[in-house]
Amino acid sequence: MGTTEEHHQQYMYTGMNMEACKNRVAVPPPQPFFKSLQTNLKETFFPDDPLRQFKNQPKSRKFILGLQYFFPFLEWTPRYNIGFLKSDLIAGITIASLAIPQGISYAKLGNLPPILGLYSSFVPPLIYAMMGSSRDIAVGTLAVASLLTGSMLSSAVSPTENPKLFLHLAFTATLIAGLLEVTLGLLRLGFIVDFLSHATIVGFMGGAATVVCLQQLKGILGLHHFTQSTDLISVMRSVFSQDHQWRWESAVLGCCFLFFLLLTRYFSKKKPRFFWISAMAPLTSVVLGSLLVYFTHAEKHGVEVIGYLKKGVNPLSFQDFVFFSPYFPVALKTGIVTGILALAEGVAVGRSFAMFKNYNIDGNKEMIAFGMMNILGSCTSCYLTSGPFCRSAVNYNAGCKTAASNIVMSIAVMITLLFLTPLFYYTPLVVLSSIIISAMLSLIDYKAAIHLWKIDKFDFLVCISAYLGVVFGSVEIGLVIAVALSILRVLLFVSRPRTFVLGNVPNSVCYRSVDQYPNAQTVPGILILEIGSPIYFTNAGYLRERIIRWIDDEEDRLKLSGETSLHYVILDMSAVACIDTSGISMLEELKKVVDRRDLKLVLANPGGELMKKLDRSRFLESLGQEWVHLTVGEAVGACRYMLHNYKPKSDLNGETWSNNV
Amino acid sequence: MGTTEEHHQQYMYTGMNMEACKNRVAVPPPQPFFKSLQTNLKETFFPDDPLRQFKNQPKSRKFILGLQYFFPFLEWTPRYNIGFLKSDLIAGITIASLAIPQGISYAKLGNLPPILGLYSSFVPPLIYAMMGSSRDIAVGTLAVASLLTGSMLSSAVSPTENPKLFLHLAFTATLIAGLLEVTLGLLRLGFIVDFLSHATIVGFMGGAATVVCLQQLKGILGLHHFTQSTDLISVMRSVFSQDHQWRWESAVLGCCFLFFLLLTRYFSKKKPRFFWISAMAPLTSVVLGSLLVYFTHAEKHGVEVIGYLKKGVNPLSFQDFVFFSPYFPVALKTGIVTGILALAEGVAVGRSFAMFKNYNIDGNKEMIAFGMMNILGSCTSCYLTSGPFCRSAVNYNAGCKTAASNIVMSIAVMITLLFLTPLFYYTPLVVLSSIIISAMLSLIDYKAAIHLWKIDKFDFLVCISAYLGVVFGSVEIGLVIAVALSILRVLLFVSRPRTFVLGNVPNSVCYRSVDQYPNAQTVPGILILEIGSPIYFTNAGYLRERIIRWIDDEEDRLKLSGETSLHYVILDMSAVACIDTSGISMLEELKKVVDRRDLKLVLANPGGELMKKLDRSRFLESLGQEWVHLTVGEAVGACRYMLHNYKPKSDLNGETWSNNV
Repeated sequence: MGTTEEHHQQYMYTGMNMEACKNRVAVPPPQPFFKSLQTNLKETFFPDDPLRQFKNQPKSRKFILGLQYFFPFLEWTPRYNIGFLKSDLIAGITIASLAIPQGISYAKLGNLPPILGLYSSFVPPLIYAMMGSSRDIAVGTLAVASLLTGSMLSSAVSPTENPKLFLHLAFTATLIAGLLEVTLGLLRLGFIVDFLSHATIVGFMGGAATVVCLQQLKGILGLHHFTQSTDLISVMRSVFSQDHQWRWESAVLGCCFLFFLLLTRYFSKKKPRFFWISAMAPLTSVVLGSLLVYFTHAEKHGVEVIGYLKKGVNPLSFQDFVFFSPYFPVALKTGIVTGILALAEGVAVGRSFAMFKNYNIDGNKEMIAFGMMNILGSCTSCYLTSGPFCRSAVNYNAGCKTAASNIVMSIAVMITLLFLTPLFYYTPLVVLSSIIISAMLSLIDYKAAIHLWKIDKFDFLVCISAYLGVVFGSVEIGLVIAVALSILRVLLFVSRPRTFVLGNVPNSVCYRSVDQYPNAQTVPGILILEIGSPIYFTNAGYLRERIIRWIDDEEDRLKLSGETSLHYVILDMSAVACIDTSGISMLEELKKVVDRRDLKLVLANPGGELMKKLDRSRFLESLGQEWVHLTVGEAVGACRYMLHNYKPKSDLNGETWSNNV
Repeated sequence: MGTTEEHHQQYMYTGMNMEACKNRVAVPPPQPFFKSLQTNLKETFFPDDPLRQFKNQPKSRKFILGLQYFFPFLEWTPRYNIGFLKSDLIAGITIASLAIPQGISYAKLGNLPPILGLYSSFVPPLIYAMMGSSRDIAVGTLAVASLLTGSMLSSAVSPTENPKLFLHLAFTATLIAGLLEVTLGLLRLGFIVDFLSHATIVGFMGGAATVVCLQQLKGILGLHHFTQSTDLISVMRSVFSQDHQWRWESAVLGCCFLFFLLLTRYFSKKKPRFFWISAMAPLTSVVLGSLLVYFTHAEKHGVEVIGYLKKGVNPLSFQDFVFFSPYFPVALKTGIVTGILALAEGVAVGRSFAMFKNYNIDGNKEMIAFGMMNILGSCTSCYLTSGPFCRSAVNYNAGCKTAASNIVMSIAVMITLLFLTPLFYYTPLVVLSSIIISAMLSLIDYKAAIHLWKIDKFDFLVCISAYLGVVFGSVEIGLVIAVALSILRVLLFVSRPRTFVLGNVPNSVCYRSVDQYPNAQTVPGILILEIGSPIYFTNAGYLRERIIRWIDDEEDRLKLSGETSLHYVILDMSAVACIDTSGISMLEELKKVVDRRDLKLVLANPGGELMKKLDRSRFLESLGQEWVHLTVGEAVGACRYMLHNYKPKSDLNGETWSNNV
């Protein structure tokens, strides 16, 4: 071995003796119980430190900051100027032109009256503009949540036979979703959303988008009867069992508009400057389609149209809630499931755009805004709204500056509601189907799935299971599969942490995994193991078995090769950032096992938390503080020193030594 | 600063340049997909490597080893000798003398006919002796599981009004528990038991023991009517509402025997050589109590007795299972809950004693043994059995050598069943109550609770919640609270990992947490953070927020103090043993944020798994391999080198530098 190694070796031996080591690994200064409790609670519920700006401020300023915290528009209105207004006007009109046809389409998807889609683009954006802290979110209904509302409520009440009850259940579900969102936000439980992993969401959204597209076959083919199920097999059976009823006029029209929409999308993607072309395309399609039907009277030749839409803004609906009905549990379930979905999408979208523009949003506060929006929305004939990705992306591309673009959209929708609803009479449903399909296709993120396959096979499995669950089962089954797999993944992660055998990296004092650094050299007579995770009750048993197995393997290997026998087991605790009582018991048991085999347990680099608990549980005493070292290198140095000077077993002789070192 | 520091600094600068670093952190050699899958599956389901001994053996030997694996008695019978027999005989007779009165008592506790307790100490021990691999477990019924069986089944069927159905449900529940145990064992899902943390079990067992003791007030006070509930308030109300019915004869007798039992226990604890005194005490109490009643005719003066017990060994009971009854769901639920409880106790007891005597037992195989024992038991009029702690401890203390002590106990119980049952006619119930109370008191492990409080406050909270849930709610409520808290604990653990700011430990190249080592010195212009856990989807969002907050804090601090501004953020990835795709995305986002602030992200010591995924996801490319270092020390060296030679910002001058270093 080179001189550097020897040099280090020397440094170690000269610079260190057993006494000096004693004080090297510090037990951190004790903290009062309530202070550490406070720290823990803060990390759990306020990881983003939302109260940061309140620090060291006078009381009156604190009050203003508090108001601004809950109503962020108070913060930006004073700074609002004509430049902002111009940008927001353009963005607002652009998203309104997308919101109107999309709103109507999604309401149809949820078996709800089309006008509800417009209502839901009027009141909620106003509330969000006051309470939301994202500058880019454009409020509106979500395709998947609409579909889910429709299918879950349909299982209890038929939307065609009892449309009134169905509508009231939808309002109730929206109220429940809103209450849930506000509650989660106030209790700062927003991190629940984190338990849906990225892979799960990719799979679930892709599956939901596929299912939504399949549902559009009804509109495209102009079918009157259609299955209530959403799975692929039912839909295909439904479509092909009535192939004599397919309307070619409808299908041709649908395909033309779909082609048009996809073409504009493709064009806008190539030239981002012309984002407005794809943003305006849906409204253009609606206008063109309506004109076509009006002049050709296609509504009499198999092309269904929206028909009469009531003029006027949102009627109140708080008298319509059904709490004391046998159907309430269905509304409750629907509200909870769709509420969490809407929250997940809205918070994720808000965060992504905040990341682009480099400002902060507080997920928990966003939840309160979404919740209030849905509570007040449910009282004014709106159904579930959130911050859908595609509409927000258009808003962002259109150059919105503040949440005022939502107000502009809201006013545009109000004008539509007050004066323009008759214009939608001739709008063919097939155009709405095309709009939905073109929006949904972008949600099937096959590239992300390929990326997952490349990086992490288990994540890909989770993703594809969620996808197949939605497509072949139902949206709910898919969601359950996705959540169950995500939780299973966490449990597997925490119950089977990695352990590594370490070796000395040549020409350094570092000890690293021999798997990763094949040229790292193990030290004869000493087994060095790294534990790759905090030790909890879920993995304590496994780690004990695994470490004993490593020792067995090493002893077997040494026996076979006839090398020097094992004397020391060094555990590198760098990665053990925390430990619970089960973990401490595990270490105690391990020490007993190691002692019984005439080996010596040595700890390297235990962290503060670990030292505190080892100290309190008297494990340190029983181990001996001289067997706790700051680095693996020092631990190895100390072990070698002991081996050389005390030679605990006769099987060790100078020759083997110098050959191996 | 001292010369050692300078020396190291020099070493770093001379020994390293940017080019040399490039190849330092290795991306581990790629592994074929199926090989890594195989490794993962092995670690998940076979962490203890039970097939170890089959390696490199001829086929015939493998067959024998396989037989021995499932029937361990084949392994020890050939080596069995007269010395073993002597020890096992003594141990077997000792545990039989405990098993007979305890069996009868526990059966009463579960509202089952007393004779069932004897049946359950006859067949299951024989099966365990053949299939079990623990040398110390003494098979028998469990107090808590008996109570739980009784109370769960009572909620559906009254044991007094419909004793036959009640009994059949108990057999069915036992069968289900057995099937569940075998299934879990065969699928090697034994690690499910690990999800009950030590703290949970201490609290739950203490609570259950308290509840069981409270139930004995019925026997001690000689009450005829008693509440079906198990919670403290109901029991106290029941006891004090009928204080005119208390029988002093019964109470006096009970207290005397309880005192006697506790005294012998205390004596045996002080002098472990006389373990047999406390082991024989219950049988002695039964004999003394029976004689007393026989001679004083106390059964006519308010002291209830067991009465007639049928002679003869276990009748068959497989014709009694109720699968197609409305009560089946109750039996199913009871079977699952009690089965898992019995498993948890049995496996834990087996493991502890194996640890003492330094032999290995395979938890999953033990489960199969317990399961078979309960399946065959349920066909021969036995109810749920496992390896109870107190009986096994007596067995161990009595010096048992092999599972043959169970056979001896079984034969002793058989003789009792065939010839001696009439002797129990006059046994007073109050003696049984005393036996239960004295056994239960040792389960209330208040010392463990104090230990938990000292070491880990959250673990204590979990423990005390489980205790209070059982005592003031019910056994089931306590169990649900315990499991929910355990899972919540895991989720909190994984979603809120620790992060530390690192500083240079004086006179070393090590960088350690400044919280733990208050004398560690931070490096000006460089923020060094350690991430204390693998990065998963559950903590990725939190870690992003937390790291950004650390950067904010550091920048604020530097601004206030007027020191040099921040230029580099070094992430010490030592503890990040694995990562998923959400974690990779988090790092990508973090890099964007850091870049936008004109800072540079540097990684130190990423592990193999991490490097592999960073490489595949092209994060390494975008970061630049020269910003990945083997140690924090080298990363700091490289950053300092860059700062000195390129001075990215004008705020940095030589003076500040030398003052701070």
